[in-house]
This record gives sequence, C-alpha cells and structure tokens, in this order.
Amino acid sequence: MPHSKVYYGADYNPDQWLDRPDILAQDIELMKKANISVVSLGIFAWATLEPEEGKYNLDWMAKIIDDLYAAGVRVNLATPSGARPAWMTRKYPEVLRVGANRVRNLFGERHNHCYTSPVYREKVKQMNQQLAARFGRHPGVIMWHLSNEYGGECHCELCQEAFRGWLREKYGTIEAVNKAWNSKFWSHDYPDFSYIESPAPHGENSVHGLKLDWKRFVSHQTIDFMKWERDCLREIVPESKVCANMMYFYDGIDYFDMAKEIDLATWDAYPTWHKPTETIEDTAIDTAFMHDLYYSVKGQPFWLMENCPGPTNWQPISKGKKPGMNIFAGLQTVAHGGDGVLYFQWRQSQGSSEKFHAAVVSHDCREDNRIYMECAELGSILKEIAPVAGAKREKQAAIVYDWSNKWALEDAQGPRNKGLSYKHELLRHHQGLTQNGIDVQIINQDSDLTGYKVVVAPMLYMLREDFCEKLRRFVQDGGVLVVTYWSGVVNETDLCYLGDTPHNLTDVLGVRRMEIDAMYDGETRRCVTESDELPQVAHGSILCEVAALEGAQPLMVYDEDYFSGAPVVTEHAFGKGKAYYIATRLERDFYKPLYRLICEDVVSSCWPTHLPEGVHASARGEYVFLQNMTEAYVWAENLELAPYCMAVYKREGDALVLVYNQPEFKWSPIK
Amino acid sequence: MPHSKVYYGADYNPDQWLDRPDILAQDIELMKKANISVVSLGIFAWATLEPEEGKYNLDWMAKIIDDLYAAGVRVNLATPSGARPAWMTRKYPEVLRVGANRVRNLFGERHNHCYTSPVYREKVKQMNQQLAARFGRHPGVIMWHLSNEYGGECHCELCQEAFRGWLREKYGTIEAVNKAWNSKFWSHDYPDFSYIESPAPHGENSVHGLKLDWKRFVSHQTIDFMKWERDCLREIVPESKVCANMMYFYDGIDYFDMAKEIDLATWDAYPTWHKPTETIEDTAIDTAFMHDLYYSVKGQPFWLMENCPGPTNWQPISKGKKPGMNIFAGLQTVAHGGDGVLYFQWRQSQGSSEKFHAAVVSHDCREDNRIYMECAELGSILKEIAPVAGAKREKQAAIVYDWSNKWALEDAQGPRNKGLSYKHELLRHHQGLTQNGIDVQIINQDSDLTGYKVVVAPMLYMLREDFCEKLRRFVQDGGVLVVTYWSGVVNETDLCYLGDTPHNLTDVLGVRRMEIDAMYDGETRRCVTESDELPQVAHGSILCEVAALEGAQPLMVYDEDYFSGAPVVTEHAFGKGKAYYIATRLERDFYKPLYRLICEDVVSSCWPTHLPEGVHASARGEYVFLQNMTEAYVWAENLELAPYCMAVYKREGDALVLVYNQPEFKWSPIK
Amino acid sequence: MPHSKVYYGADYNPDQWLDRPDILAQDIELMKKANISVVSLGIFAWATLEPEEGKYNLDWMAKIIDDLYAAGVRVNLATPSGARPAWMTRKYPEVLRVGANRVRNLFGERHNHCYTSPVYREKVKQMNQQLAARFGRHPGVIMWHLSNEYGGECHCELCQEAFRGWLREKYGTIEAVNKAWNSKFWSHDYPDFSYIESPAPHGENSVHGLKLDWKRFVSHQTIDFMKWERDCLREIVPESKVCANMMYFYDGIDYFDMAKEIDLATWDAYPTWHKPTETIEDTAIDTAFMHDLYYSVKGQPFWLMENCPGPTNWQPISKGKKPGMNIFAGLQTVAHGGDGVLYFQWRQSQGSSEKFHAAVVSHDCREDNRIYMECAELGSILKEIAPVAGAKREKQAAIVYDWSNKWALEDAQGPRNKGLSYKHELLRHHQGLTQNGIDVQIINQDSDLTGYKVVVAPMLYMLREDFCEKLRRFVQDGGVLVVTYWSGVVNETDLCYLGDTPHNLTDVLGVRRMEIDAMYDGETRRCVTESDELPQVAHGSILCEVAALEGAQPLMVYDEDYFSGAPVVTEHAFGKGKAYYIATRLERDFYKPLYRLICEDVVSSCWPTHLPEGVHASARGEYVFLQNMTEAYVWAENLELAPYCMAVYKREGDALVLVYNQPEFKWSPIK
Repeated sequence: MPHSKVYYGADYNPDQWLDRPDILAQDIELMKKANISVVSLGIFAWATLEPEEGKYNLDWMAKIIDDLYAAGVRVNLATPSGARPAWMTRKYPEVLRVGANRVRNLFGERHNHCYTSPVYREKVKQMNQQLAARFGRHPGVIMWHLSNEYGGECHCELCQEAFRGWLREKYGTIEAVNKAWNSKFWSHDYPDFSYIESPAPHGENSVHGLKLDWKRFVSHQTIDFMKWERDCLREIVPESKVCANMMYFYDGIDYFDMAKEIDLATWDAYPTWHKPTETIEDTAIDTAFMHDLYYSVKGQPFWLMENCPGPTNWQPISKGKKPGMNIFAGLQTVAHGGDGVLYFQWRQSQGSSEKFHAAVVSHDCREDNRIYMECAELGSILKEIAPVAGAKREKQAAIVYDWSNKWALEDAQGPRNKGLSYKHELLRHHQGLTQNGIDVQIINQDSDLTGYKVVVAPMLYMLREDFCEKLRRFVQDGGVLVVTYWSGVVNETDLCYLGDTPHNLTDVLGVRRMEIDAMYDGETRRCVTESDELPQVAHGSILCEVAALEGAQPLMVYDEDYFSGAPVVTEHAFGKGKAYYIATRLERDFYKPLYRLICEDVVSSCWPTHLPEGVHASARGEYVFLQNMTEAYVWAENLELAPYCMAVYKREGDALVLVYNQPEFKWSPIK
Repeated sequence: MPHSKVYYGADYNPDQWLDRPDILAQDIELMKKANISVVSLGIFAWATLEPEEGKYNLDWMAKIIDDLYAAGVRVNLATPSGARPAWMTRKYPEVLRVGANRVRNLFGERHNHCYTSPVYREKVKQMNQQLAARFGRHPGVIMWHLSNEYGGECHCELCQEAFRGWLREKYGTIEAVNKAWNSKFWSHDYPDFSYIESPAPHGENSVHGLKLDWKRFVSHQTIDFMKWERDCLREIVPESKVCANMMYFYDGIDYFDMAKEIDLATWDAYPTWHKPTETIEDTAIDTAFMHDLYYSVKGQPFWLMENCPGPTNWQPISKGKKPGMNIFAGLQTVAHGGDGVLYFQWRQSQGSSEKFHAAVVSHDCREDNRIYMECAELGSILKEIAPVAGAKREKQAAIVYDWSNKWALEDAQGPRNKGLSYKHELLRHHQGLTQNGIDVQIINQDSDLTGYKVVVAPMLYMLREDFCEKLRRFVQDGGVLVVTYWSGVVNETDLCYLGDTPHNLTDVLGVRRMEIDAMYDGETRRCVTESDELPQVAHGSILCEVAALEGAQPLMVYDEDYFSGAPVVTEHAFGKGKAYYIATRLERDFYKPLYRLICEDVVSSCWPTHLPEGVHASARGEYVFLQNMTEAYVWAENLELAPYCMAVYKREGDALVLVYNQPEFKWSPIK
Repeated sequence: MPHSKVYYGADYNPDQWLDRPDILAQDIELMKKANISVVSLGIFAWATLEPEEGKYNLDWMAKIIDDLYAAGVRVNLATPSGARPAWMTRKYPEVLRVGANRVRNLFGERHNHCYTSPVYREKVKQMNQQLAARFGRHPGVIMWHLSNEYGGECHCELCQEAFRGWLREKYGTIEAVNKAWNSKFWSHDYPDFSYIESPAPHGENSVHGLKLDWKRFVSHQTIDFMKWERDCLREIVPESKVCANMMYFYDGIDYFDMAKEIDLATWDAYPTWHKPTETIEDTAIDTAFMHDLYYSVKGQPFWLMENCPGPTNWQPISKGKKPGMNIFAGLQTVAHGGDGVLYFQWRQSQGSSEKFHAAVVSHDCREDNRIYMECAELGSILKEIAPVAGAKREKQAAIVYDWSNKWALEDAQGPRNKGLSYKHELLRHHQGLTQNGIDVQIINQDSDLTGYKVVVAPMLYMLREDFCEKLRRFVQDGGVLVVTYWSGVVNETDLCYLGDTPHNLTDVLGVRRMEIDAMYDGETRRCVTESDELPQVAHGSILCEVAALEGAQPLMVYDEDYFSGAPVVTEHAFGKGKAYYIATRLERDFYKPLYRLICEDVVSSCWPTHLPEGVHASARGEYVFLQNMTEAYVWAENLELAPYCMAVYKREGDALVLVYNQPEFKWSPIK
C-alpha cells in the first residue's frame, strides 16, 4: 500500500440495491462528503455475480467500480466465497459443511462450506478468476479481500481423510501418534490412521492430543483454502495484493500462521463500549491488545477492516456509541499502527439478520443523522493526520500469546475448568506495560526475540522445548523475562513434563513449582510485600501456585492458608538478565507498579512523565498519540484533552511537538 | 349458546376409569353437589374409541353422555385428535411430526401429529364423523371441543411442500419472494420455490422474512387443519357449534385468525398466583389482559376452558391457591366477559405425567377436601349471578396486539435480543387504562377502529401501510392515539422503511425518530416533567428512543445522558384528535396517571370515583364488577370488600345498585 | 478377605508406562515406602492385553503381578471391559452404545458399550477367561475388580427387545402394563409389547410408569452384564472373589440389587472438601452417609475403591486438599466400616483427560511432594490401627433410601419439579442421628427391619404395600418409626393411592394428609412449639404438608399462612411402639435435638457425653472413632484432638480406652 494516507471506508454491498439507482447515487455523494477513500466490495455477492452455474454477471460491478473510482474511492475487492449461491448447494451437496454430530448442514446462513471439498475449491477458482480477469488490473482495485472472516470447521468424510493425511505427514507412524496422545489411557490405541476421527459429541472428547491436533488441522486447512483463493487470483494477476479479515480473539485459526500468507493484516473490532461493568479505559485496553496483536502478526501497519459506527445488533444488548466514541475508536486504531479504518458497513441493509447493525448511512438516509455526521468528522480528522501513515513501531516489550497454548490450556481439564480466562491474564500484563507508556507487541513461540527488552510469558502452560531454549538464551544475553503460574507444564502434544517445572526454566527463574491450588470464584489469598514500589497488600485469585525458592528473591509472599510464606513474586538474576516469576493472578491495579519496577532501567516510556489515570500514550515512528480514555476533561502536561479525545505529537529530538489536538465532537437532540 | 347461565364445569376423562363404576357414580354425585353444568368430554379418548383401526367402541361414551344428561350436565364433546393411538403411528408413520432438525418423532406424548398429512386428516375425518353421527344430535351435546390446544409445527416434506405452495399463493413469483425477504443479503436468492426450506438449526436462521412467513404458514396450516375437523363434523351435523381452547400468549398461532373459524372463543388460564415476585394484583392484571384478548377476538363472551382449582404440576414450583383464590379467578373471568368457567380437570388421574395437577376431585376422593369445597362454593355463586350471562362490553380503549408484529419484533436481531418483553409493554398500557376503570379491548391490524375512543399501539415495530392509514384517519376523525418507541420500523415482510419513522406517522405524532439506545438490564435514564398530573421523575428502561420534535409538545423529557432534553412523552393535536408518543418504557406506576391525563374528557370510568389501590372495576352490559385484588379488607365507596372478593352492581340510570356481595371463603386445617 | 489389616492402595495402570522401566521400578520403591498393600490392576488395559482380535499379550502383566507380589503388594485384578479396543468397534459396531436419540456412538471415551450385545458379552468372556486362566490362582491376586464404574444406558434395538422381554416377564400381559402405567392417559394404550420403546427426547417422556420401568430395566441389565463377567471368571476359577466400584448417589443402578451379586462392596468417593459453601463437617456428613450406605448394602465392611489424594481435575474448580485432609478422609472410611482405602490412581498419567487428577505420585516424581508424603503417612497410620479390620457395626437406626422411590420421586412432575433434593432430606436425618452418636444404616424396601430400634422413612413417596406392612408390624412390635411429608403417595408402578394417605399408615401415624404446598426457593413457613426439647421456632421449606390430626399429639405446629395451627411434628403411640410424622423440611440444626428427643430411652450413643460441635463419634465392634471435623483444636472429654484428627478408643466393659491418638500432619512450603 502506498502510505500517503490512512485509508477510510466501509464494506459496500450495492448488490442489495441494484434496483435503486437513487440510493446508489446518494452513496457516491455521501462517500465524498465523508472523505471515504476505500470500500470492500461484493463480499456476499456471489449469487448476483453468478446467478446460474457458469453464467457470470459482472457488468453491474464494473459500473460500481468505475463510479467509485471517479469519486476517488478505491476498491478492496472481495472474493465472494463466504456465502455460496443456492444452486451450488443442490447440485454439489458436498460443498456444505458437516457438523461434529456428522449431520450435513442444509443451505442457509453464510460461512457454511467445506474447506476441503475439491468441488468447492474449483467453483471458487472459477469465480475468483472471473473477477481477477475482469477487475484485477483496474486502477481502482488496490487489494483483494479474501472471502470473509474465515472460520468454522467441517467434519465430512473429505475432511476426516485430510485430517488423517495431515497427521500422517506430521507424525509418520501411528505408533508416534499413540505415543504423542498417550493413547494407552482408556485403551485408545489407534491400530492405524484410518481409525482416527475428529472429536464428536457422540464420539471422542477426552483425548486432549487428538483435540489439539484437530484444532491445528482445522487452522491449517482453513489457511490452505485461503492460499488456494489467493493463488487462483495470482494465476491471473501475479502482483495481486491480498488481505483477510481476522476476528478479535477468535479461537479457530492460528492467525500468526495465517498472517504469513497475506500482504496486509486486518481485523474486525466490535468492542462493547459503555458496558456498565467496564470503564472506557477497560474496553480501550482490551481493544488495544488486539490492535497490537494484529500489528504484530506481520510486524507492520494493519487495517481495521470492520468496526461499527453505532450499535451492533448481535449482542444481547446492542448499545449505541455515545457522541465521540466512534472517532476515538478510529483514532485509537491509528495510534496503535493502523493504516486503515473501515466500517461494517456503508449502508444499513433493508432486511434480514443484520438490518439493525449500524452503518455509516442509516435507514433514514439522512445526512444529519448523528452517526453519519460523526463518521464524516472522523474522515476529515484522518485527512489531517495523514502523515502518520506507514510509520512503524519500536520493539520494547513482547507478550507471548500462542494459539496452541490457548487451545491446550483451555481444554486442559484441571485445575479450573471454567473461569480460567487466559485473556484476562494477558490483558493484565498488557495494561501494566502500556500504562507505563511502553510499547507492547504480541508474539508466539515461533517468534524471534531479537530486539525486545522484556518478554512476558503469561500462563504459558504449553511450553515448547525450542521456545524454552529461546527464553533461556534471551535472559542469558541480558533480557528481562516474566513468567507466571501455570507455565511450562506440558510439551507440544500436551503431554506433561515429568520432573521439575516450569520445565527447563527452574534454574532461570530460581523457583520450582510444588503444587497449584484452584480458587473458587471470588475466593482469594492475601499476599504481602515489604517493597516500597509495590502495593503492600494484594490478593491472589483463580490459581495460586505454591513454589519452592531455588535461588530467587521473593518480592511478595502469601500471607494466608497453609502455604503462607510461599513466594508470590520473585526476582532472579540469570546470565546478563533477570527473570521474574508471578505465582498467581493479582488485582488489575497491581500490574502498573509491578511493571514500573520491572521495566525501569530496561525500557523507557514514550511519554516524558507519569501518565494521568485513564490517559494512555503510544508511539508510531516519530508520532506519539496521547489518548484520553475517560469521559472527563484531563490535563496531561500542559494540554487539556477533551473526553475521548486525542492529541498527536511529533518527536523532534528529545522534545514532543503537538501536531494535532482533536476537538470534542458535540451533539444534542435539541436544536 | 343460550345465555341463561354461566356454564360451570371441567374436562372429564372417564375413559381412564371405565373399570371403576364406583368412581363414575361418585363423579355424577359430586358434580350435582358442585352445580356442574357442562363437561368437556373425551379429549384424549381416541385409543378407547378406536382401539383398532376401523373398530369403533362408542357405547361407553353413550352411557356417560346419557348419565350426565340425566344429572343436568351438558357435554362439550371433544374430537380426540390431540393424541392418536399407537396403532396409527406404526401403520402410517407420516402422521408423526418431524422436528426442525428433520428427524421424525417417535410415538409418544400428545399433539405430535403433522397438520398437513392427508392420512392423518382422513383418520380424523373418520373418527369425527363417527362421533358426530352417534352423538351430534344428542340433546346433551351442546358444543364441540375441537382437538386440544392446537399448536406446534412439523417440518416433514409434506409440510415443506405445503409451505412452498402457500408462498407461491402469497407472492406469485420467486422474484417477489426474494425482494420481500431481501434475499440478496448473504447471497440467499432462491432460484425457484423448490429451494425454500423451513428454518432449521443446521439450516437457515438468519433470513427474517423466511422465518416470519414460516410462522405465518404454521399458523395458517394449523387453522386449516382445525377447519378440516370442523367441516367433517358439519358434513354430518351442519348446525354443529365448535370451539377451540387457546393458550395465554401462545406464540404459534394467530388467534385472531383462528377465532374467525369457531363459534366460541375459549382459553386455558394457568396464572401463578402467590409468586413471591408478584402481587395478587399483578397476576390478576396479567390474566385480565388475556380475558380481554379472548373476549376481543370475537367481540363476544368467551369461556375459560381450562383453569386449575389448586396447584398445577408442571411449573418448576407448583404452588397451591390459598383459600378464596380459585373463586376470585372464576369470578374475574365473568367480570371480563366470560360465560363459562371450566377446570382441567374433573378428577385427578391416577397415573402418568399430570397426576398431581389439581382437579375438582382429588386422589383422596373426599367431599371435605378443600379444593372440592371451594369449587362447590363457586358453583353456587355462579348460579346466583346467572343473569349476567350474555352481557357484552362497551368499546372504550383498544390496545393493538398483533401476532405478526410479535413474531417480527421478537426475532428482530437488535437493538435488544433478550429481555425486550413485548408482553410487559402491553401490560403497562392495559393496567394504566383499567386502573382508571376504562374498558380495554385487544385488536390487531385487521381490526376496525370504529367505536373506540382511544387506540394504543405499543411497540408496533411492524406497521402495515394499511393500518397506518387507519390510524391516521382515526386521529383525523377525533380519536386519541398513543404510539410508543420502536413502532413503525418495518413493513409487513420485515423490510425496514427507508426515510423518516415512525413510518408515515411523523406528521400525526409530530415527532421523528433519530436513534434508539438499548439499556442493559437494570440500567435506566432519568426523565422529568413540569406537569402536575404526571410523576415528577420517572425512569426510562429497556430501550430509550431519541426523537426530534416536529410539532409535538413535550410533556416529559430525558434528564440524563447525551440525549438529555429529548422528548419522552409528547402530545400533538392532529385533525380532530390527538396523538401521544412515548419514547421509552417507564415504571409501571407511571401509566395510571398518564392514562388519566390522556383519557379525561375522552372516555369515562365505569366506577364513579377513584378506585382504591388494588381494587379494579370492570363493566359487562349493565353490570359492574368491583374486584378486590388484595389480601386485605378494603372499603370502596360504602362497601367493605373481603380479601380476593367481588361485588356485583347493576347500573340503573346513573346509579349503581349492589346486586351481589361475595362472602369470604374461609378454611382452616383445625376443626 | 482376611481381616488382618486395612488394605491400602490405588488403581495402577502400568500399561501406560511399559516403555519406561525406570518409572516402573520407582513405582515399586515408592509403594513399599508408603506401605501400599494392594493395587487395582489393568482397569483400562484391554488394548494392551489384546492389541488385535484374539492375539493376547499378557506377559507384561505377569511380570507386573510378580514384581508387586515380591514387594508385598496384592492385586485386585480388573476385567478390562470398561473400555474396549478400537478394532472391536469397527468390526462389531453393535458393541457401541446407542443414545436416547437413537444415534449410535462413535468409538471414543470409555463405558461406551451395550450391555445387551451378545458380541460384546462374548468378547468380554474371552478376555476375562484369558485373565482368569493365567492369573486367577496367582497368590498375589486376591480379588477381581469387575469392569469399572458400571453405568449408562443403551437404546439400541437389542436393548429395546430385551426391555420388552423384561416387561413381559414382569407383567405377563400388555393389559397389565397398560393398567400399571395408566396408559389411557393421553391415549397411550400399547396394543402389544412390540409397541413399547424406551423414553426418547423425540418420543415418549410423559408416561412415568414407562420411565420408571426403563430405569429398573437398565439397572437390571447392567447387573446382568456384571453377573456375566463374574460367571465367566468363575467358570475358570470357581472360588474367585469379585467386587465392583459403585459411585456415590449414582442414579442409574439399584446398588442394593448389585451388592447381592458381589463379594465385597466398594465405592468411589470424590467429596469437594474446602468448598466455600460448606464446612468440613458438612462434607464429612455427606461422605459418612455414603460410607454407611456402602456398609449397609452388604451389611459388612466395604472398601473405598477410589478417592483422590489431592485435587481432582473434573470439577468446575478442582481444589486441592489442605494438609491432613486426605488422612482424615482415609480414617473416616475406616471409622464407618471400611477395610480398604484406595486411590485413583497410583501415578498421574502423562497425557489425556485425567492427567491433572492428583495421584499418589505426581508428575514431578518426587518423594518430597506433599501428596506423596501425606499418603505415606496414612499408610503408616493404617498399619498402626490394623486390628480394627473386620469389625462390624451394631444395628441402631435405619434410614430408608430406595432407588425406585428416588426414581419415581424425582421424575414425579409436581409439586416441585426442581430443588426437591431428596439427598438433603436424607442427610438431615442422618446428621440428626449421628450427631447424637447413634449408628445409622441405610436400608431399602426389601430390607429386613429386625434388629433396628429406629426406622426413618424420609420422603418415601413410593411406598410399597409390603413395606407398609413391615413398617406397621415394626411399630406394633415396639419400634420407633419416623415418616416425613410426601410419603405413601404412590404404589410401586407410580399410580397414586386413592383414599387417605400416607397410604395405610394414617392409623399408625395418627395423621392424614390434606394437602401439600410447594415453597419457592427461599420461601419458608414459621413453625412453633411449646416443647422445651426442641427449638422454639423453626421454618418449613421446600414442601409444606397440611395434615389433619387423627389421634397424634402435635409437638410443633405451623404459625403462618392459611394452614396456621396445622401440625408440623407429631407423635403417636401405636402398638408397643411410637410413630412420628414431620410435615415439612426444617432447618438442618433442628434435627439433632429432634432425634435426641426421639431416641432417648430407645438407643444410646457410642460416646458417653454430649459431643462437642463438629466432633463425631462412630463405633465398629469394640472400637470407637472420635473425629474432629473442624479446623481447630478441640477438647472432647479429657483429650485434645488436633484439626481434622481422630482418636481411636477400645471399649473395655463400660470404659473407653484410648488406643490411638492421631498426630497432626504438618507441612509448610518454607524450609
């Protein structure tokens, strides 16, 4: 992508409005007024593009692309594989997904296809190549939007066979599989590969190794399908750029793997702002983690491919965004490395299940609709801060978030089968670092640790031998490592390490796990410290690990229960670096002082002084974004930030020069 | 029906006791003592009436009917189609229902048959005509009880085909269907009718138009089956009168449509009196709404076909009725236009799933059982107030309750997908009116508004163009219209109206919807007024609509959040009438003063003064029923009402003359 | 079993470790150090024992048995039928279970086989006889562990046919079935046996008699399968002793019936100690009830076949046991008549779904692991108290707990369909008795009442005519009978008794049920008494029965609601005995004084004085176990008991002589 601007746009589905030229004309008009520069086009248009098998109908799309181009709007052209036409379903039933209960779906919904089916791949190829041939070199088409929110799984016999092939490739022999899965347990030895079946409600659910590998296979197969789509396009237009829209903490695909196969990482963000149980800052931190993840998967600017300018319609309670919230959400994206901010969708559909999902243009079709006005305002702000586009981020701290670990951890059966909340553990560390103005990137066990000063491994239950080595060398060479409870427990096929744990890190950390106790919801254990830099009292929850000191210094200890006196936070010098261990989950507010202590002398904040409560600072290249995550006016240094508003600074030498100060977006129902 | 009395009776299932002549003899004895005048006979007797295919066994029933007749008890004779014999199931599996998962049910339960199956219809015809031929002209048989609680749905291939036929009839072309359902969304265009399938857990669930039409079809097909049953009888005895027992707020059938096809509306009432979370008045209001609905569907007196004289057995906690409660429930029925009060059932079954459902005669077979004593007491009261039978009700206010609207509203996806509670919105308006002594009838969008003074349209999300016109004319001609938030949003196929809303009513109401915000459970927005007639402060919940004033006068405004100042209640003169708009759901106590304000000078109460807290008054013809819905003694004018007791007055000119004052029913376990 | 010792051991699954001779060697070493005397061997080893059909591989097991024998460890040898090898599943699909939805399971999990399948029985026979022939006379093999936790049900056509056969055997004619099930209800008459099918989610669920008989059949068929396993062994080694591990309150099998067919009763105990909602005493009482049940089913010492030395891994939150808790649990078993204390399992599995279930040896393989240390400590205590082994218990009080009653009661539909909690009613009476130091045994309606002084029938909803007679004679002959609300309602096919109830006991009790009212959760009714021996005020909950006095003396009456004054507790002399009636569920603390009043002059405590709060005493032969169920030091008479600790006394004449005083187990994470 050229970095001349932050792209601004939306999903655009004119196929729903082809009989309404007045609407299509208004679209162009309103896009221009809102400074829209890109749309994702035709995501669910297959039935319109190919109403009968082999009968293509692309002219309407040609006109749309031309009209957009003339209006200065570029196109991120979708392959329409996210939903297939009815005719295909009847003629080739194999394209439909089979559930874990081994029942094939009927036609309906979207994302309801088998990723293995050769027929479906062939039909997708024909469709994609029609589009590529017709539009692939159109100057308005700057990128391909591969399908939509890839996900789900299929248990058809084609997928079962592909799974067996994938296992054969990975393990070589059935004996290796049986060993890796500890199949002897409950007499589950597989005589040969043909006996292996995916998990099922009325079949296997207890062999963790099988379940883990099934999840890995599903991720692999989905990505393989995506590559097929991409390569079909490139057969016609080799220089095609592609992206795929990823989803928050979506469980079903290892996005680190997926990101390798695309040119631009993008994600779809649907935070629930204004929930009574969360502050704006809480929601913003959760979102910031994801921005950082999607920046990290490729280590380069990403796009926010979908977000909602007002209320969604699929949450139990779909609350609107208060005035200014949508602008904040857009600018927060840019602050964390986003070079594109797009909405789902441009115009509200007139019918069907998403008709009440807010869009830039509402059913009332009015320009004075608050949502449209706010979107237009963001369009003009993004124009003002265009120079920031393309700027990359500095490596400071990295948090390990690994899909295989997540899958294994959450399926582990013990010590806590609900409420483990891996996500909240991750967020505590992210927050502790970012509240100190430190840049955080998200890595997995394949990642290179070079360049990072601090590496945090929260609940790294599944610790690969090779990553263990990387961590050891990282500390030896001067890095700072933070490891929490419930780390280093199993190997990559979910077999428990025998002997002392955290596996192969007890000497690095200077501690050894003795036992781990699960807390009931709301149950805690008191912890105390003599350090001046940490809260004097804190409370462990969720899981309380009891460890023996083997060289480390305790910074905080338990003060309750039979394990009173056991370490809660320890520090240990190892090689040229240091290793910290945290034995339990502490209150959220504990992590800001903890990371100030850990990081001082190691990395420095992008903001010169302590940040006020609820104000965050993040850096992109020479730019620093100061973000007010509160509903109040706040002073930071000598600047007053309006509620939900940001200021952009440019680093010039040691100084930060204000380059943009966002005005508050005001709106009232009363004229 | 002759209106010489209020019919009093119960479901009677002697087929369960044919081997116990002593029991059957006691039945007759106890019926006489309790002043029973009618029973619904043989509802589930098919297996006894036709133990083998074509081998009918009707003699036992002849004897029962004769014995009842001799005892002065009339028969409401059931067609036994609610449960079919086992032999039919094996020989003709097509009679069994197929679930949405496309799996055919096994034999078992009741109400488990396909309404489309030609075989089932034929078997029903043979059975019904046997009954009609033998008993249709018996002087004791005064009515036919068609099947039992029609309901449920079948997804078999016969029903699918019937659904497609129904759609073809309705829309003509597949293009019209695709347009009506906005099928372009997610590429759902149906190439032809044969592609259409009913919603399924593993199929389509997102096309709202399809789901809505499926519900309409199921309602249609069920009524069609009922008509088949009726017409089979009338082929033999043309003058046969028929009724069908409807159920509370049952979702599956549009009872306005069903009522057209029967001679008498009846319903089955199972309110949960004495719940800790509700007052007696709350429960009574909920029940009163339903009485008013079932009066309204035909605009004539109805029967309470089933109610329980003691505890039911199917609620999670089946609480008994305290002494006097059952009598209150029976008399409340009459007060709202009921000409029949019947129980399920006469005698408790000895076994199977309903054996602990209370009945007039309990397992102990005792006459001094409290339930029997209370039933007998009500029997004698009903005799005393016999003259009220047949009296009709005056048209004052109408509340719009429309099944299509309910179906669309509750399936809408956004802005609140749970806890919308259409019912509670309806009840608030009903309560506000009835607490002011105003008669309320329930109408739908097919109804004629003539004669009503006030029409209330709560949450009329789906507003048909033709009804919109009716409302407009109603106000123009001098009527008072009340419309709430989330009205006038979609057309009758659930497509959103484009442009300003409430559709086609913005000029009538003098307001225009700008946006709508969903509240979390327990979340509210403060509202204030300067009016003396309304509570000074109230709180909006569930959904808060933000509207622009376009001519209306605000009576109350929001006092919180970014939409502070926006109108909550407005008044607008239009033509010769007035239109009110309510932007949110307010506390229950708000509606009594609101409707006093709205109704004064428009309609007048049936009671001359303000009603005391918890006391309701309702009128039937010349009679006014004063109902004490509290557990205390209460003075109303110069009469003291005992707990749960009523007084009946007769209007003579402007005066109300007391004609019956109910004595308290007292009972103690201690002799 | 020889009674020279309390057996101590664990499930042992060396088949998971055959490639790790170092692990197997450590096993032997650590068993010796922990005083292990028995292991249950090979429970899930079928795939290792018969890797291909007919190809047996038993040598590894021979070596294990020999090595254990040499180390002084005896073997309880398992038949491996709890999980079958994959090859069998493919070749003979009929061995897999079919769900109630009529879908056959896939290979996977354990306990997934049809108990009826002739093929499965044949395969089990071949396997069992191989084991019997090779190991049945090995001096180290002292018992057979039949399968594992028999349970579950199968709905395949073979089982349906077996069910019909069982019914034909039981009832003779289809008319008798129809009568017994009251099939006339909802026209359910079965034309012949072939129409009968097991309950199904899409079939029959309302005929209680069918559901009850299905449960009885499943229990019968499971036991029949167990007998098949046993008899296969005895064909080879006629003197084989067998046991089966039963499970807590498991619903699926009538364990009184099962116990008749085995030589030793055993059960698997997984109490959740340290739950925030329960005291240690609460959990201990719950467990004590089960110990008493499993003692009672054969009236002789039982084994605790499985329990967990630390945290389990299958509970939502799997909490560890605090230091000393595991020892308490082991000794409590012995105190209640246990002659064996075993764990699941010896060593934690390395992978699959139970890998985090605590075991004697943890993944760290350390001897200084707290769990291992505590297990070793218990091993040495059990050695010290070896003389207690074999001692039997005195008959004092019996509580009726009957599986048919449980099945019928919990499926009853009314008056309370959730939260009835039969278990808690049982525990209240157990606690009331045991807190007074009275021995409790658990009986069913087949039991002989001879020897008991007090018989308690809580919620004996289903009261068989013959048991009714037994109770009558028991009281007539001088026994004390306690009957609660909701007793004597239905006969053994779940048909309601007509006439007065509790059926055939109204004269014995001197009361007659008038009605019963269900309380909502948290709802109560005040009860009062003038007796000095009972709490002055108590509160009825769950169900409040209203009864008429017919000769009994009220000890407590309701003081609230319309049934104020009705009796809550009554006493009635009948024949040479007395009968008590309790009309509702009262607070837990009510039952200790109640049973002190009921039992004084009837039976005497095994402890000479009042027991301190939280301290229980129970007797086995000459031994009395004094158990501190609190976390504090407690004085009882002149002895101080440490937290969770016990003392053992021996009765010598009238004196109790201290023979063992358990030291506290102390542990700290800090050296």
